[in-house]
Amino acid sequence: MPREYIRIHEVGLRDGLQNEAAFVPTTDKLWLADTLGKAGLSRIEITSFVSPRWIPQLADHAMVAAQAPRREGVQYSALVPNRRGLEGAKAADMEAIAVFLSASEAHSKKNINKSIDEALKVLGEVTTAAKAEGMWVRGYVSTVFGCPYEGEVDPAKPHELVHRLFEMGVDEVSLGDTIGVANPRQVREFVSRLSQDLPLENIALHMHDTRGTALANVLAGLDSGITIFDSAFGGLGGCPYAPGASGNVATEDLVYMLDGMGYDTGVDLDTLIGASEHVADLVSRTLPSKVLQSELGRRRKDAERAARAR
Amino acid sequence: MPREYIRIHEVGLRDGLQNEAAFVPTTDKLWLADTLGKAGLSRIEITSFVSPRWIPQLADHAMVAAQAPRREGVQYSALVPNRRGLEGAKAADMEAIAVFLSASEAHSKKNINKSIDEALKVLGEVTTAAKAEGMWVRGYVSTVFGCPYEGEVDPAKPHELVHRLFEMGVDEVSLGDTIGVANPRQVREFVSRLSQDLPLENIALHMHDTRGTALANVLAGLDSGITIFDSAFGGLGGCPYAPGASGNVATEDLVYMLDGMGYDTGVDLDTLIGASEHVADLVSRTLPSKVLQSELGRRRKDAERAARAR
Repeated sequence: MPREYIRIHEVGLRDGLQNEAAFVPTTDKLWLADTLGKAGLSRIEITSFVSPRWIPQLADHAMVAAQAPRREGVQYSALVPNRRGLEGAKAADMEAIAVFLSASEAHSKKNINKSIDEALKVLGEVTTAAKAEGMWVRGYVSTVFGCPYEGEVDPAKPHELVHRLFEMGVDEVSLGDTIGVANPRQVREFVSRLSQDLPLENIALHMHDTRGTALANVLAGLDSGITIFDSAFGGLGGCPYAPGASGNVATEDLVYMLDGMGYDTGVDLDTLIGASEHVADLVSRTLPSKVLQSELGRRRKDAERAARAR
Repeated sequence: MPREYIRIHEVGLRDGLQNEAAFVPTTDKLWLADTLGKAGLSRIEITSFVSPRWIPQLADHAMVAAQAPRREGVQYSALVPNRRGLEGAKAADMEAIAVFLSASEAHSKKNINKSIDEALKVLGEVTTAAKAEGMWVRGYVSTVFGCPYEGEVDPAKPHELVHRLFEMGVDEVSLGDTIGVANPRQVREFVSRLSQDLPLENIALHMHDTRGTALANVLAGLDSGITIFDSAFGGLGGCPYAPGASGNVATEDLVYMLDGMGYDTGVDLDTLIGASEHVADLVSRTLPSKVLQSELGRRRKDAERAARAR
């Protein structure tokens, strides 16, 4: 029996790096994008066309987007906040973009200084323009499972926004547990709610691991019929110098769990770990991926044993 | 509707500390045991009556076991490897003990220099003697989901050992993912296998988080009918100086997930975090619990904000 394919949407170069204190040089970003494709990831979100004033870590977005070597069968995408970002993505020959909005008014105001309705208006324009260019469009809904300012989020709100995004023409919606507060019961209940009036095959889960529950939430989503999951290689993001920030679930850990359960991810763990080792050097810290940590520990041990045997 | 009670068996002072490089002073261990009881944990495994030659970190087992202040409704237990250990536990007035064996021959030989059959013989003697004293006995089966030397473990072996332990008279069996390789599918399949000829209410899961899958495995166990889970406060264990070792799932993260899902754990997170903060100072490292890390991050941020406001 063929194994069921689970799609991983790799966000480390965008959501990961934008939350790291260090600026990763452009040539390294290009090498990392190439290596992630080589590792078998079929979706790579490589940068964000936001102002360098807001996210200096991705100030080189135009170069990264234009120069990242494309690989057959791999989709490269960039986050765009507005029409200007879309123009940048087009100029860099991106075939796919992502737009975003928040399920909480307070978070929306704090994050982008717009109400949800104002954000929806911009998203609608960007999506229509992108679709007219034949681009694939992903819509992120953040703070689906909880908001840092409002606390609980009424599930009716993100549910409505998912509908609005599909009505605008987005191809896929990713549900973000932006601050990593979700629990598996909540994930099951929300996915079950969506499944009543939406097909699940174009819905992704984007879990952060702030409280250690990301993989359990992925499992809950998987059991509920979700087949697309966002993750960041190494568990990038969540810089220790920015308390409260937290990394995405690590791609290595996600792949390890899915592989073990008999799913097909198409990802080669060794190649992926090579990318994470390199970026860990660049951001000068131990990355949170447990699979990465245990593999590096094993190698150190083997090397010590070999040295003693000489 | 009353919430379902999920029992947490706290192993940080035993399984956690035995894997830390630092020796935690006896008075601190006593304070920690007291604080864990105060936090609402109903089971505290406080030490191990093994030779200080093997585990110097717990060389003070007799003092810790005898002097830990008892609390109504809390069960205090100690690991004992043999008759001599049992005598020590009795002398220290322990009401409960734990015995252990491995599901893998290679691991059994390496770990305790005994075959599984030899280990079973000792366990039988210890269990019979302990039961004659009116003690409660827990049996650990380690490497249930994988062995560092043999790799895969045939589930028939741990299944048989669980039966043997109950036949000997143990009150509860804890299934250990000693090296943290299990995945949720494996957990479900093994628990389902056991449920065919054993009641699940006296079976616990003991997951390590070496590859980040511990909470997902707990969720799989929970869904399969398991109601007792082992964990270590702060995610103790898995010292970074001992590559390959890895911590138990963190009690904080387990409690956060279970609370959020609507289960009753009886545990007060703030008190628990107080214990973890203290032990983190003593072992001089950042502990892996994500809930702990995010709470400490939040407090730092609040303190900075307050300082700026002055």
